[in-house]
Amino acid sequence: MTVRVDGRTPDQLRKITVERGWSDHAEGSALISFGGTKVLCTASFTAGVPRWKVGKGEGWVTAEYAMLPRATHDRNDREAVKGKIGGRTHEISRLIGRSLRAIVDVRELGENTIVIDCDVLQADGGTRTAAITGAYIALADSIAWAREKKLIPAKAQPLTGSVAAVSVGIIDGEPFLDLAYTEDVRAHTDMNVVVTGDGKFVEVQGTAEGVPFDRDELNLLLDLALKGTTQLTQIQKAALAGAAS
Amino acid sequence: MTVRVDGRTPDQLRKITVERGWSDHAEGSALISFGGTKVLCTASFTAGVPRWKVGKGEGWVTAEYAMLPRATHDRNDREAVKGKIGGRTHEISRLIGRSLRAIVDVRELGENTIVIDCDVLQADGGTRTAAITGAYIALADSIAWAREKKLIPAKAQPLTGSVAAVSVGIIDGEPFLDLAYTEDVRAHTDMNVVVTGDGKFVEVQGTAEGVPFDRDELNLLLDLALKGTTQLTQIQKAALAGAAS
Amino acid sequence: MTVRVDGRTPDQLRKITVERGWSDHAEGSALISFGGTKVLCTASFTAGVPRWKVGKGEGWVTAEYAMLPRATHDRNDREAVKGKIGGRTHEISRLIGRSLRAIVDVRELGENTIVIDCDVLQADGGTRTAAITGAYIALADSIAWAREKKLIPAKAQPLTGSVAAVSVGIIDGEPFLDLAYTEDVRAHTDMNVVVTGDGKFVEVQGTAEGVPFDRDELNLLLDLALKGTTQLTQIQKAALAGAAS
Amino acid sequence: MTVRVDGRTPDQLRKITVERGWSDHAEGSALISFGGTKVLCTASFTAGVPRWKVGKGEGWVTAEYAMLPRATHDRNDREAVKGKIGGRTHEISRLIGRSLRAIVDVRELGENTIVIDCDVLQADGGTRTAAITGAYIALADSIAWAREKKLIPAKAQPLTGSVAAVSVGIIDGEPFLDLAYTEDVRAHTDMNVVVTGDGKFVEVQGTAEGVPFDRDELNLLLDLALKGTTQLTQIQKAALAGAAS
Amino acid sequence: MTVRVDGRTPDQLRKITVERGWSDHAEGSALISFGGTKVLCTASFTAGVPRWKVGKGEGWVTAEYAMLPRATHDRNDREAVKGKIGGRTHEISRLIGRSLRAIVDVRELGENTIVIDCDVLQADGGTRTAAITGAYIALADSIAWAREKKLIPAKAQPLTGSVAAVSVGIIDGEPFLDLAYTEDVRAHTDMNVVVTGDGKFVEVQGTAEGVPFDRDELNLLLDLALKGTTQLTQIQKAALAGAAS
Amino acid sequence: MTVRVDGRTPDQLRKITVERGWSDHAEGSALISFGGTKVLCTASFTAGVPRWKVGKGEGWVTAEYAMLPRATHDRNDREAVKGKIGGRTHEISRLIGRSLRAIVDVRELGENTIVIDCDVLQADGGTRTAAITGAYIALADSIAWAREKKLIPAKAQPLTGSVAAVSVGIIDGEPFLDLAYTEDVRAHTDMNVVVTGDGKFVEVQGTAEGVPFDRDELNLLLDLALKGTTQLTQIQKAALAGAAS
Repeated sequence: MTVRVDGRTPDQLRKITVERGWSDHAEGSALISFGGTKVLCTASFTAGVPRWKVGKGEGWVTAEYAMLPRATHDRNDREAVKGKIGGRTHEISRLIGRSLRAIVDVRELGENTIVIDCDVLQADGGTRTAAITGAYIALADSIAWAREKKLIPAKAQPLTGSVAAVSVGIIDGEPFLDLAYTEDVRAHTDMNVVVTGDGKFVEVQGTAEGVPFDRDELNLLLDLALKGTTQLTQIQKAALAGAAS
Repeated sequence: MTVRVDGRTPDQLRKITVERGWSDHAEGSALISFGGTKVLCTASFTAGVPRWKVGKGEGWVTAEYAMLPRATHDRNDREAVKGKIGGRTHEISRLIGRSLRAIVDVRELGENTIVIDCDVLQADGGTRTAAITGAYIALADSIAWAREKKLIPAKAQPLTGSVAAVSVGIIDGEPFLDLAYTEDVRAHTDMNVVVTGDGKFVEVQGTAEGVPFDRDELNLLLDLALKGTTQLTQIQKAALAGAAS
Repeated sequence: MTVRVDGRTPDQLRKITVERGWSDHAEGSALISFGGTKVLCTASFTAGVPRWKVGKGEGWVTAEYAMLPRATHDRNDREAVKGKIGGRTHEISRLIGRSLRAIVDVRELGENTIVIDCDVLQADGGTRTAAITGAYIALADSIAWAREKKLIPAKAQPLTGSVAAVSVGIIDGEPFLDLAYTEDVRAHTDMNVVVTGDGKFVEVQGTAEGVPFDRDELNLLLDLALKGTTQLTQIQKAALAGAAS
Repeated sequence: MTVRVDGRTPDQLRKITVERGWSDHAEGSALISFGGTKVLCTASFTAGVPRWKVGKGEGWVTAEYAMLPRATHDRNDREAVKGKIGGRTHEISRLIGRSLRAIVDVRELGENTIVIDCDVLQADGGTRTAAITGAYIALADSIAWAREKKLIPAKAQPLTGSVAAVSVGIIDGEPFLDLAYTEDVRAHTDMNVVVTGDGKFVEVQGTAEGVPFDRDELNLLLDLALKGTTQLTQIQKAALAGAAS
Repeated sequence: MTVRVDGRTPDQLRKITVERGWSDHAEGSALISFGGTKVLCTASFTAGVPRWKVGKGEGWVTAEYAMLPRATHDRNDREAVKGKIGGRTHEISRLIGRSLRAIVDVRELGENTIVIDCDVLQADGGTRTAAITGAYIALADSIAWAREKKLIPAKAQPLTGSVAAVSVGIIDGEPFLDLAYTEDVRAHTDMNVVVTGDGKFVEVQGTAEGVPFDRDELNLLLDLALKGTTQLTQIQKAALAGAAS
Repeated sequence: MTVRVDGRTPDQLRKITVERGWSDHAEGSALISFGGTKVLCTASFTAGVPRWKVGKGEGWVTAEYAMLPRATHDRNDREAVKGKIGGRTHEISRLIGRSLRAIVDVRELGENTIVIDCDVLQADGGTRTAAITGAYIALADSIAWAREKKLIPAKAQPLTGSVAAVSVGIIDGEPFLDLAYTEDVRAHTDMNVVVTGDGKFVEVQGTAEGVPFDRDELNLLLDLALKGTTQLTQIQKAALAGAAS
């Protein structure tokens, strides 16, 4: 069996760690690591909703993703300095927001907004999947906080499930789970899969890098992704079962 | 069998028209319609490549997508007036660019750049898939133009295939091909599939809107999408076989 | 008599075509061509007025002009991508808005706003004059629409007349009507004249390019312009008399 | 005869003052007043030309116009704070630049650039015409400076003439010269006329505010404007004949 | 004793002039000169406060600082053209605002806002200290204006004192008061000191340029600064005692 | 003696921790905590200098400061989303850069640039002083890295000393060292002092919040600050003496 640079088997996740409740200020937070990728996820719960949602009696959940300038091997200019947000940042922020909303019933939130900030402190591949996986934990904790503070009714159930994400890719014809940066660069096909706790798809985003992929390869990748998200779901459950740090 | 608002069967494309060579100025162009969705695609061929590509002897293909402010039912503010490009615009521009590059061998282009502009003159669902399908025609014509002008060698083959795209979605449990706007709004799952002329996947982007989808639904959608792109590929071939208008 | 590149006499307009009601969505629209110059004009009627007009019981009419990036011979960067609108775009948008307001009695509109978007799909000189001429048709149709929808009173008469525009210029001492791009480049003096249906001036903008002009030249240009706008007024009347496409 | 608020006759300029050489730093400068309108014009002469002019052996002259936030009766937000330049500012900057270039032979400048900054310190109508009139003085002095510093040849003659500008307008059917702000607000037709020292037109910009104007009114306004610019030309000559302050 | 380039002793201010009431429009204004540095300070008094102050019954005082592009020896690009405000501009605007608020009791202002604009018409070192010193005069006059117009109660005392500022620096080991530009460039340590009319500190901002400074040097600089601000306070009093121009 | 909320004496620093070498990618890094304030400082060493420094044979050191949106008790909008950097961010970035350059001899760096990014992960007062103190460690390590990689000569000594910073303030007449957020809010006078390892001042920035301060208070604050920076210098030395994590 192929052995990966970091000693993993092709179907093995990197070491996943979760530091739940990292932030003193946020209503929910998690510092999550997928190997060398470290993402700080904070959930900010505030009363009120964006103007276009006002008066519907529903809440809103949204997300913002960003990278510190030196999260990567070479430094990137700050988007705030450039004065505009790049396409990649926009795209990932929107993906995280959609993924979370897929497991939230906004009618149960009342007219409140939860913003999830996912800031990549260090990047080594899979930052968007780590962000989604950590964001769910911050979100769940912020909802528990709101319930405790009686900002939403005690019996409100805004969460309809959990959500986790992982990347998969094909390198030299072989499928791999949870690509590190050096693997991601070499992959011909790259797929990010967002899956609920009960194994249904929220997002499937497969992209051919150079070589188009066929139906069989797609199926192999989906099998592998589901294996990964099943484990990530367990890790999320374990983290939420303990006391926050 | 379910009959759609516009009289189509669930597995039927809207009326597709292509006005190839619409522009007097562009090196390649097509005004493509998927029913009420009309997208003007122009290809601009210029010598030179972006700074980060210089000196590699390779070319570059990129795309920009935009909508006229009143392409939609209600008017949207111009992004130029707002002073920034929205996330959706960025995301679609990047998707079109990646889709085209998947069937281009940039080494065969020399250090030249082709920019494909896809401007939605009127929107009725499926603007990104119409854009990709029309962009391929503009791209192919700009490459033929460059070959004729001897800007690339006569035997250069920058195109490794063709590419077309279509949307599919599940409404009330049933899969539909090529969603019009009113259908798109009702779909629980929405998928855009970009496929090469020989039936391989370039992009698969499936998104659950509210209700996650399972493996069977995913497979039904992919079957339907491939049916649509096979027809679009034929339409592209026919358009490119004729004389440009 | 001088024969122009395209076979016209000096005092002859290019072929003018109007595709009224081009848009499925806009309350009024026209795709107008002055030879190779093609401008899509759409009118968007919405309830309410800008903040500084609120409470006066009056409406507002404004316009935005833009060019597609490859409307011109060489591609221009998108203003949305550059993040700011150029001076020329601003200047022309303001000119169109003023020209239309000159024949609108805003008190008859109620507190409603009409935004006219003029998007140049292809440019070959005279884009601003084609835009004004087409914008009037879209405006007139949007007002008819509002009257029919009872959004303004049946007897309201917001239009106090019609408006059309044409460019004139002096090339090698001789005055020419409706300059195409290659003529515009060669003109020493360039003038855009906006005229009401009854032959009065709304805007006279004459600019010396290199060589100042005297009073006689100014008078010759004005004579020629009035000849052109008289014909354009007839074309507008004919277009509005027919059924919209 | 009508007597104006400030005691002038309809064909009378306001009090014009010129403080030539106001700036210690600029290569040419003038603080010009048209009554309560005060504009500081500075000319900055630098080696080199914009990229698109490089290698043609020609120079470039351009202008930037701006108002201090409290130049006007009510304070306006700074354009720097808003992060973008408004349409009016753009339009006037372009007008000043074109007006100056009409009397400059850029081939005589060598590859040098002169930027004229016109900053309105206090506004009371006619800021653009005061700016053009003062800008010519700053420009002339900067060219004299460059000749003295041997940055252009001693016999180079970049100036082909002089240029001055004035506003005229029709109030209640009567034409008036050099409108103050309260008059400008009441004018039905407003015209800015830029004229060379030998009485030829560089720009004629007439705008109907509400009521279109006819040929006779246009002629009356042009007569009046030429009367004003003849006097302004004399004032410019006198200012340039003296020693700079 | 060291004699400075302009003939001053090390502890001597430059010639200070104040043209109070320079603006026809502003509620308070002063054109202040510290030698070749000329700053136009205008105070704009308006009803209402920023959103975050509403409902507290207090007023607000803020300031904006800017330089004309050719205020300096070489021309700087306009911040409005660049589309963003630089760090230095921000920093000085904030300093001026804080300095003024230190001697204002906002509760005595009612819910009104005073904006002080400090525009540097010509720069020769010490622009921020001239701005603060002139801004106080404009501020005081705007408050007197508001009292006279009964916009604040006759007995309201928003001013708790006066404020003035001066720069000091160490050149070749010797301390100097009120540095001109050529001196500022040579200074190893540069300090701006903002002092109330009764000799207390509002701001002390000392910066080592290259060589850190010790406690003794700090004390010498503070002594010198206090000597300068004492004189500036006298000049402010004299200006405010006279009739505004 | 006054006991502070967190049990400290007035002249006591908060618990200071330094996690040196936190980043896998940066050439030098430190995660520094001053109590609840946590700042990630990374140093990026790159060949080349900004355009205005090219050809002088000298290097450049600069800094950028930013806060994560939920570093604070309430969430702040991202500056990248707002499209511009606020005045406070600019001011602190400049302060950090100046402070570091005060102890760097850029001639010893060669034409290389070091950018120090200071990102506040969590804020509880004193973020700028923690940033400066941590930035020095990251800077020192990046210089050691460059020497080891032979990017600067083995005997080059770019560092002329060390630098650390602390805040001090007066609350109810009593001076306090290293203010936490709740203390900072209550302070009448707030001072940030940047001091070299040998006890000289690099920056002294004292600001009266409401009540001006006198010479005695200034002296008390400086005494206290020097006490704090002496300890911080020791902590820096200890951190740099150990092996990086």
